[in-house]
Amino acid sequence: MDDIGRSKRAERAFSLDDVAIMPTRRTRAMETVDLEWKCDAITFSFPLLAAPMDSVMSPRTAIEFGRLGGLGVLNLEGLWTRYEDPLPVLEELAGMGADAGVTARLQEIYAAPIRAELITERLRQIREADVPVAGALSPQNAQEFAEVIEGVGCDFFVIRGTAVSAQHVARDHEPLDLAKFIHEMEVPVIVGGCATYQTALHLMRTGAAGVLVGFGGAAMSTNAQTLGIEVPMATAISDAAEARRDYLDESGGRYVHVIADGSMGYCGDVVKALACGADAAMLGTPLARATDAPGKGWHWGPEAWHQSLPRGRRVHMEQVGSLAEIIAGPSHSPDGEMNFAGALRRALATTGYTDVKSFQRIDLIIR
Amino acid sequence: MDDIGRSKRAERAFSLDDVAIMPTRRTRAMETVDLEWKCDAITFSFPLLAAPMDSVMSPRTAIEFGRLGGLGVLNLEGLWTRYEDPLPVLEELAGMGADAGVTARLQEIYAAPIRAELITERLRQIREADVPVAGALSPQNAQEFAEVIEGVGCDFFVIRGTAVSAQHVARDHEPLDLAKFIHEMEVPVIVGGCATYQTALHLMRTGAAGVLVGFGGAAMSTNAQTLGIEVPMATAISDAAEARRDYLDESGGRYVHVIADGSMGYCGDVVKALACGADAAMLGTPLARATDAPGKGWHWGPEAWHQSLPRGRRVHMEQVGSLAEIIAGPSHSPDGEMNFAGALRRALATTGYTDVKSFQRIDLIIR
Amino acid sequence: MDDIGRSKRAERAFSLDDVAIMPTRRTRAMETVDLEWKCDAITFSFPLLAAPMDSVMSPRTAIEFGRLGGLGVLNLEGLWTRYEDPLPVLEELAGMGADAGVTARLQEIYAAPIRAELITERLRQIREADVPVAGALSPQNAQEFAEVIEGVGCDFFVIRGTAVSAQHVARDHEPLDLAKFIHEMEVPVIVGGCATYQTALHLMRTGAAGVLVGFGGAAMSTNAQTLGIEVPMATAISDAAEARRDYLDESGGRYVHVIADGSMGYCGDVVKALACGADAAMLGTPLARATDAPGKGWHWGPEAWHQSLPRGRRVHMEQVGSLAEIIAGPSHSPDGEMNFAGALRRALATTGYTDVKSFQRIDLIIR
Amino acid sequence: MDDIGRSKRAERAFSLDDVAIMPTRRTRAMETVDLEWKCDAITFSFPLLAAPMDSVMSPRTAIEFGRLGGLGVLNLEGLWTRYEDPLPVLEELAGMGADAGVTARLQEIYAAPIRAELITERLRQIREADVPVAGALSPQNAQEFAEVIEGVGCDFFVIRGTAVSAQHVARDHEPLDLAKFIHEMEVPVIVGGCATYQTALHLMRTGAAGVLVGFGGAAMSTNAQTLGIEVPMATAISDAAEARRDYLDESGGRYVHVIADGSMGYCGDVVKALACGADAAMLGTPLARATDAPGKGWHWGPEAWHQSLPRGRRVHMEQVGSLAEIIAGPSHSPDGEMNFAGALRRALATTGYTDVKSFQRIDLIIR
Repeated sequence: MDDIGRSKRAERAFSLDDVAIMPTRRTRAMETVDLEWKCDAITFSFPLLAAPMDSVMSPRTAIEFGRLGGLGVLNLEGLWTRYEDPLPVLEELAGMGADAGVTARLQEIYAAPIRAELITERLRQIREADVPVAGALSPQNAQEFAEVIEGVGCDFFVIRGTAVSAQHVARDHEPLDLAKFIHEMEVPVIVGGCATYQTALHLMRTGAAGVLVGFGGAAMSTNAQTLGIEVPMATAISDAAEARRDYLDESGGRYVHVIADGSMGYCGDVVKALACGADAAMLGTPLARATDAPGKGWHWGPEAWHQSLPRGRRVHMEQVGSLAEIIAGPSHSPDGEMNFAGALRRALATTGYTDVKSFQRIDLIIR
Repeated sequence: MDDIGRSKRAERAFSLDDVAIMPTRRTRAMETVDLEWKCDAITFSFPLLAAPMDSVMSPRTAIEFGRLGGLGVLNLEGLWTRYEDPLPVLEELAGMGADAGVTARLQEIYAAPIRAELITERLRQIREADVPVAGALSPQNAQEFAEVIEGVGCDFFVIRGTAVSAQHVARDHEPLDLAKFIHEMEVPVIVGGCATYQTALHLMRTGAAGVLVGFGGAAMSTNAQTLGIEVPMATAISDAAEARRDYLDESGGRYVHVIADGSMGYCGDVVKALACGADAAMLGTPLARATDAPGKGWHWGPEAWHQSLPRGRRVHMEQVGSLAEIIAGPSHSPDGEMNFAGALRRALATTGYTDVKSFQRIDLIIR
Repeated sequence: MDDIGRSKRAERAFSLDDVAIMPTRRTRAMETVDLEWKCDAITFSFPLLAAPMDSVMSPRTAIEFGRLGGLGVLNLEGLWTRYEDPLPVLEELAGMGADAGVTARLQEIYAAPIRAELITERLRQIREADVPVAGALSPQNAQEFAEVIEGVGCDFFVIRGTAVSAQHVARDHEPLDLAKFIHEMEVPVIVGGCATYQTALHLMRTGAAGVLVGFGGAAMSTNAQTLGIEVPMATAISDAAEARRDYLDESGGRYVHVIADGSMGYCGDVVKALACGADAAMLGTPLARATDAPGKGWHWGPEAWHQSLPRGRRVHMEQVGSLAEIIAGPSHSPDGEMNFAGALRRALATTGYTDVKSFQRIDLIIR
Repeated sequence: MDDIGRSKRAERAFSLDDVAIMPTRRTRAMETVDLEWKCDAITFSFPLLAAPMDSVMSPRTAIEFGRLGGLGVLNLEGLWTRYEDPLPVLEELAGMGADAGVTARLQEIYAAPIRAELITERLRQIREADVPVAGALSPQNAQEFAEVIEGVGCDFFVIRGTAVSAQHVARDHEPLDLAKFIHEMEVPVIVGGCATYQTALHLMRTGAAGVLVGFGGAAMSTNAQTLGIEVPMATAISDAAEARRDYLDESGGRYVHVIADGSMGYCGDVVKALACGADAAMLGTPLARATDAPGKGWHWGPEAWHQSLPRGRRVHMEQVGSLAEIIAGPSHSPDGEMNFAGALRRALATTGYTDVKSFQRIDLIIR
């Protein structure tokens, strides 16, 4: 704890950029590393989720991501559930460039209502492709569309907001009781973002299968500039990992997955997130670099179109390769933007670890 | 305390950029947050003041700012009290661009004398609009024009300088005795800038209603480069908040408002200033971005035209929206430049606080 | 140790940029400084090695570097052992500029097989010039070509990889037993990169004559971005120097040389590396600036052409002078890019040290 | 002390940029501040010296600087003592722009021999103008031209080198015995650069009237990049100030002036140097911005033309005003580049100090 002045003390928090992994005295061959991630009933080839963002996930790319071995999560309050045919809208946005008026246009486009029947249709399309199915809503919309989602039979339901707490106070309406809601859902729920030990612990107690660690995301987020609120990820993950450990003991053995969400633009960031204690990572920016991403070279999140206080930019992304190449390689870029699974495997091999669980114990340095 | 070398020790001081707010385990609905700020006899809709700078406040924009619910402060030693009609001067400056000769021209323009009858006229104009009236002078001019100001019947008189101390030593003239001066003024006085616990405490003892924390301001100030003097705001606010607490006890209950002044270019900076202990924030740069600001896309402070040692730049500002949109939204910018009141409300809601006073207790992190 | 969060602690590690040398109270004349470096049977004029990179070392430049008084190390799995005549390949690469497709083209070029007879031919060419002979292979290829190398009669055999550990685990094949391998080699072996005290100590115990400290190198490496792994050099060298001291005691007097490898772009970096405890430094980037370097103004390392996960860029280098001028001066550049031996001599003279061994004791500061 | 690794510890050192001055609870009127600096027999109007650099000091500008009230020091091994008429040389250099070949041309130009009769002529010219006379030589040339300098009757003789120690070891020649040399000189000697407590103390013991603190200077120096040696000025000055205090006691009352030399590009830097404990400051860069400086918009030091290892750049300077305006104002620049004496006076007034000696006690913060 440092003194900020005479009336305030604060602890330093660390971003993923602030830390790094030092090599150890062991190395392993690549083929001796096991990247499998088991969450609830499903085993994935690697511990990666695709973020529910319209620039990244469409039914088509969610299917593609599932076939590659990860969990693609569709945004259920985005273009695909507001528009019968969102392709012209995506086309229009891709053509807009970096105009100053983009935020206002996004606000208009996302003012269209969410349609229950489109939620059903999009999720069913993914289910028919025989890959794991997951959709995301914000806490505000979770209750309203819960039955619709259960009707389709998802593998995971993701409740994702900038800050999701187990204790929300409202005046005009009954707030969402997460514990009750999750208990009644038949589908396993992943919930977040959370940023502290206390919130992570509370969310774990709601019965969630996993918690998302972060605060409204990635490089395009301007929450720090707009709200003064910021979640240095290395510290947040490390805190949530401690909550996982404490809850495991408290619950007599329930292991809730800690999923890092955002602030991971390059392969190395994912490696560091796992080293800080995460079980898996939810990717946005890296997938927006895919030539076949719906954003067509542009990337934005739900905060970009908030009606009265937008807190995210729509940014241009260099397209580096196909979604398949970005996840599974081979890479033809020297910049850590391709072959995320390969980079993860190599990082574990280079430091002598067999799996992610044991890799969480590796020593970090502060740069 | 760190050793600078064998003969000097120093403590680290923190700017608002050095700190951030971490989410808590609680969230609240927006409508449960109360932003009201009560200062002396007046209740404002939000704890924001507009800085007495010619690029920001004219009688017209002071009225507009008051109608929105804040306190606009007119510079009483600027263009509006030196020129019968300052509009051609503002026009000329807007047309000058970033010429090297701007400083010299500003020095000429501001060499015109301050006219008492113009002080009266400008303040009366604001009073007639039925909004709170406040005008600012530097300590050097406070005594001379005090009666004029009392004659108009201001709600607040602001004594604002780069460094205002309760203990000023002079040789050729009797220095301003602040305690005596404030005691004799009928109008409540807000006084600053101050930057340390000791100065804040001394200024509170003069009987001021509020103290401004800062050292000659914003992004355009070059005091650090010119004088080597710098006031990292997070530390300065935290120190002044401690002085407020100690003076509250010492005085048997007089609450002197701590007003952060300068170094807050974005919504998030204001949020952080309150989190550090400020009761309110005085804005310059954010308002200079208004399409209807007198500066017409340019921003400068009193230090820009000092006759022998100018210590501030005149800088170009991107115009992002009307004064009303900048304060009350809605925002169409993702960059935290619009909807300051909304951002403040949302920051409190997101971290579960009902009002600014309780929000001052929130934990900070060092980034 | 700082807390990264509740479940992780980390120590700060320092790069060469983070530290600097303070002048002492002594100075010496240049001619009283002795830069000689004795390693195994050979005495070099200065403690500098040239890195086995195709943009830096060809048989011709290895000979030139040896004549100047240092140890040039040829890459034995690069262009010179994959192509009968690599000059057209180097020519093609020099003509490619900064195209996005360069990585893919490098992957193709380096997919050509390594030919044993070319290893023999290249090393023999250097031997015939009567300068010290040294060639480098990665651990993967060391075993296969060991006999070829012994057949030529090298002075040093360098086993160089991104991370070389004494304890490598594999499944499908018997991993290289470094201790056994080195014991059986007739040629003294220099092995690395290593980055920690433990790995350095283990590598010393294998019987190596020297250990390379680093992790896949220089400015062009993207290991940090791709794998999250990073080796701040000042700390790594200081750790390896401690291993050298401990092993010296443990072995009853065997002195294993600590050779800093990478992250040294300017003369001052080499000086700092020695001040941190290194006995010698292996240079890449500085030599790529030579007008007579094979890279012809471009620089890349083995990681730039990895087939599935390239982790290094090919970067443009400003050509500042001949290899001879870069090493032995005189310099006509003010930027610390020329006269490496002269700068080293001057640094020791300016701080009053007679030789590198005693200079290793100099005090550092943190900038 | 922090661990750099297992075998090295280091202390953090601070540059002037790392620190700042916080306002105090007192302010003073400008006219109550006394800037006089007494050194040996002479009282200057302000504690500023002009650095012996050819881009800054000619006989003409040394006279002008003296008339303004400071001490101009002429470089006695520069163009004015190597060339009968250096004006064409200065003209040629001004015309060269930022060519890569400038370093080589400087090396040629400064290869011309130093002529004793020109030393006499230049110093006599300054003496005739009835201002304090000071000339500078490097330790290498001090002995050879000492008699010449004494013959003219200087007020101060400055021995200035990158690193001047009281203990220099040489083999081929008897090194300069500073104590003996200074004892025998009739002219008071100012000597440096020194950078540590020990060296400062040793130089004080030689009988010097003042010590220069620094390591070969200003923004254009590349010593850090070339030699790895760096002198963060705040720490170096603070250390030398402690040596002054200890030597004052040890010598029974001899006060040796600590003169900060270099790294002070703006007024605020000089203020900070005094706050760290300096008695005076030697300026280079600020004076090179004068419209009437000999460098005509270019600035370089003796290190720029070293024959085998140049360690300084020749850089372009924006010309902001006359030498008189830069020192005594008025300023028309907002950037702290003009009115150095005025800025110094204002900094003391703003923080409530009457003179430099008491100002040395002011508290610093770490930014």
